[in-house]
Amino acid sequence: MNDVKAILFDTFGSVVDWRSSLIAEFTPWGEARGLKVDWAAFADAWRGAYHPAMDRVRKGELPWTILDDLHRQSLNRLVAEFGITGLSEAELDHMNRVWHRLTPWPDSVAGLTRLKTRYIIGPLSNGNVALLLNMAKYSGLPWDMIFGSEISKHYKPDPEVYLNACRMLGLQPYQVMMAAAHNYDLAAARALGLRTAFFARPTEYGPHQSKDFAATSDWDVVATDIKDMATKMGA
Amino acid sequence: MNDVKAILFDTFGSVVDWRSSLIAEFTPWGEARGLKVDWAAFADAWRGAYHPAMDRVRKGELPWTILDDLHRQSLNRLVAEFGITGLSEAELDHMNRVWHRLTPWPDSVAGLTRLKTRYIIGPLSNGNVALLLNMAKYSGLPWDMIFGSEISKHYKPDPEVYLNACRMLGLQPYQVMMAAAHNYDLAAARALGLRTAFFARPTEYGPHQSKDFAATSDWDVVATDIKDMATKMGA
Repeated sequence: MNDVKAILFDTFGSVVDWRSSLIAEFTPWGEARGLKVDWAAFADAWRGAYHPAMDRVRKGELPWTILDDLHRQSLNRLVAEFGITGLSEAELDHMNRVWHRLTPWPDSVAGLTRLKTRYIIGPLSNGNVALLLNMAKYSGLPWDMIFGSEISKHYKPDPEVYLNACRMLGLQPYQVMMAAAHNYDLAAARALGLRTAFFARPTEYGPHQSKDFAATSDWDVVATDIKDMATKMGA
Repeated sequence: MNDVKAILFDTFGSVVDWRSSLIAEFTPWGEARGLKVDWAAFADAWRGAYHPAMDRVRKGELPWTILDDLHRQSLNRLVAEFGITGLSEAELDHMNRVWHRLTPWPDSVAGLTRLKTRYIIGPLSNGNVALLLNMAKYSGLPWDMIFGSEISKHYKPDPEVYLNACRMLGLQPYQVMMAAAHNYDLAAARALGLRTAFFARPTEYGPHQSKDFAATSDWDVVATDIKDMATKMGA
């Protein structure tokens, strides 16, 4: 563990609370426009389209497409499915960029700020660079570097994502730690030799959460949140 | 100018003082090893190999090669030319990584810290990500994102470097400003529609400086240094 020089974070769900952010933003925004929408259901449906959309890219059914554009394709479909009409192109763009305005879990900024004093920190996310960068500016996430998915043109858990990040860092996999609230992400990282840190986010999916309530393997660090992780990492 | 959302900085010479850094580090390091070397001449020769090495990549004589590796190829040759013998592989690696430990000009950190409050800031450099990231950690450069050259696999002034950065930022060229102490870099950026900011670094090349003492065109901002640039950019 003393070899770890850089810690890479999953972002959606692990560092930021996408579900509460979407509901909190769309509820007043929709009311101001007279829209009668169950925004919790809308958020869940939009996030539900995430893995299938990336899988289409992974299988080659779609050419390389950044997450902003996958989000927009899903949004166009969901707006129709939820009976939302009358929105301008600018309003749809504004909705789509809600993913650039996600708010962190209460411990995230404090924990990352401590970890940054001792390690290189960055998101290793399926988000594109602009999304992650705007989110960092919006929410004060103190990243050193942003590994957006278009840098390797692959989506997690493809091995290229983890290995390209290690190579760009000029580090061996055992010098890099993947941190996430999702066991599948850590399993992919460990298989390639990276170190792993888990903290649960049991309300990420609200009442629909079905997994990731606890570590399912003996990850190198198991913490309660990112502040606790910083303590366990000596930062 | 109110459209500018992101400012990208040339790094070597513009933000950090490579020549003084190399001389300051190698002088005591060489003395401790009994090496009799004119380290100013050595620094100038090493930097002199920079543009020819990148040109070999640009012309396809070399496949894509990151700057750390181009530096190492030049170093191997220069060590022989300067009659330096007896260094271990670890010592040569340490020498090569001097480019990761360059110190900023006196105004750089303060100016960047102010600009960061209002703009996205990052290096747009021929350095690779690890070099720029380690330099940022070493010298406290508060970048939001690091555009290392391997992200586009091109060296400045190739247009791909500037345009890929704009695309990753999700911005149009007129929303992005290139800042540098080198007129050629700004000319390349302006030709693609980026905004431009110049500040001179008249001692970058020590007694051998032959150009870039002043702006050679009507760049959008002409400042005395990065702190003055921050003032002129309202930050």
